[in-house]
Amino acid sequence: MGKDHPDADLHPEATGPAAHIVKAHQAEHPLKLYSGWFCPFVQRVWIALEEKNIPYQYIEVNPYNKPQSLLDLNPRGLVPTLQYENKPLYESTVLCEFLEDAFPGNTPHLLPKDPYERARTRIWIDYVGTRIIPAYHRFLQHQGASGLSEKRQDFLSHIAAFTREMHPSGPFFLGAEFSLIDVVLAPWAVRMWVFDHFKDGGLGIPEGGEDELVWRRWRRWVEGVQGRSSVRNTLSEREWYLPIYKRYAEDTAQSEAAKAVRAGRGIP
Amino acid sequence: MGKDHPDADLHPEATGPAAHIVKAHQAEHPLKLYSGWFCPFVQRVWIALEEKNIPYQYIEVNPYNKPQSLLDLNPRGLVPTLQYENKPLYESTVLCEFLEDAFPGNTPHLLPKDPYERARTRIWIDYVGTRIIPAYHRFLQHQGASGLSEKRQDFLSHIAAFTREMHPSGPFFLGAEFSLIDVVLAPWAVRMWVFDHFKDGGLGIPEGGEDELVWRRWRRWVEGVQGRSSVRNTLSEREWYLPIYKRYAEDTAQSEAAKAVRAGRGIP
Repeated sequence: MGKDHPDADLHPEATGPAAHIVKAHQAEHPLKLYSGWFCPFVQRVWIALEEKNIPYQYIEVNPYNKPQSLLDLNPRGLVPTLQYENKPLYESTVLCEFLEDAFPGNTPHLLPKDPYERARTRIWIDYVGTRIIPAYHRFLQHQGASGLSEKRQDFLSHIAAFTREMHPSGPFFLGAEFSLIDVVLAPWAVRMWVFDHFKDGGLGIPEGGEDELVWRRWRRWVEGVQGRSSVRNTLSEREWYLPIYKRYAEDTAQSEAAKAVRAGRGIP
Repeated sequence: MGKDHPDADLHPEATGPAAHIVKAHQAEHPLKLYSGWFCPFVQRVWIALEEKNIPYQYIEVNPYNKPQSLLDLNPRGLVPTLQYENKPLYESTVLCEFLEDAFPGNTPHLLPKDPYERARTRIWIDYVGTRIIPAYHRFLQHQGASGLSEKRQDFLSHIAAFTREMHPSGPFFLGAEFSLIDVVLAPWAVRMWVFDHFKDGGLGIPEGGEDELVWRRWRRWVEGVQGRSSVRNTLSEREWYLPIYKRYAEDTAQSEAAKAVRAGRGIP
């Protein structure tokens, strides 16, 4: 589901490359993206829109003052919400699949056409959402030294398992072609700096050792994704992310994801 | 993901209507369903195969003695696993979508063709997996009187929210047509007896009151789903489910779902 972010000190708008994209998408358009500039779940959909050159209107949602147009559409007022033919859709992975279905003429196609490969792609999209992202949050939101190492290992083991399934040379998961598996993890991949910034011992990817090739492949994937225009252009300047992620690191963040982790529930 | 069930006293095979279906699917066939007869996640895929008249070979998996053929295919040895062209696929919702993609000539089509309706369908499929099923398990596995009522209310509130989104007359979620939204919840709907059997106060759907119409619509949906041949025919005799669900009710069950609930994690 979308993310609600009632945290104070939230910079009100995109900056850096993302600000240019926002500015270019202010004109009225029937397809509307209700967004939080900082939100990784939103960024998934934003990347897909940009990749496929789908026209849309970008609407920034202030979590303290949600536009009535959004609340009319989706009473929970969460982002990302898409408005399509005056009807709401939400859930970032559903939105990514929707863009594939609704704009079949727009390339690149981000899902394989072959039914088996399509299904395998969805298995690993699901793995990102049910294993990697919760482990990322549990690691980031962990308080204190005791148990931090276990949370780090849990997170890194999921990243390694994911990486072992990648096409051998890539750079992307399926190979040369960028796909939804890359899209759904990219926003977290470009937010990995939070561990080096906020956690003792940082991200902690081992140097050398028996998994050296796995980590080399992981770095190749990260570089590929970081270099992708749609990913770069939907990111704001890092300084404005700092106060937000500081709250995650101190486990005081109020997003749905943060609260779910504290409550011991799956991330909605 | 699939479910591992190292619980003792597990009856080794399907009984009742399901036994007939199993018997009719023993011949060698390239499409193989690795199954636990009792498993609700398996039943989703089983229902879809039966609905669409897709030929397959049924292979019962003994959790204490998993066939090497399954372990070669999927080292975790979980069910449901599908073998297709000698390659593995798993994750019950992914498998249901796969059957739609891989057998486009087989009817009924269990997903709408219209991109918006397809996306809305996926939103509510996701709701079943991320909200309803975890709440079902938290309610069932709750120990003691204190807090039971809150777990019941949490579960019923999710069922009610789901029901309010249904087509007004149905009987199925989308209306007259049975779809994947019905498929993904049906196995739990036909296992609701566990609450009346094992929990003080039973399922506890309120009589009358302000939500009377909602509960009336819910019961209409349940009747429709219980009456669907594909659902009936993939169920075994109730007495053989009792020892399994007794363990859930006592919170000693060892399935992945049960363990996830105890550990305070989302259900894989």
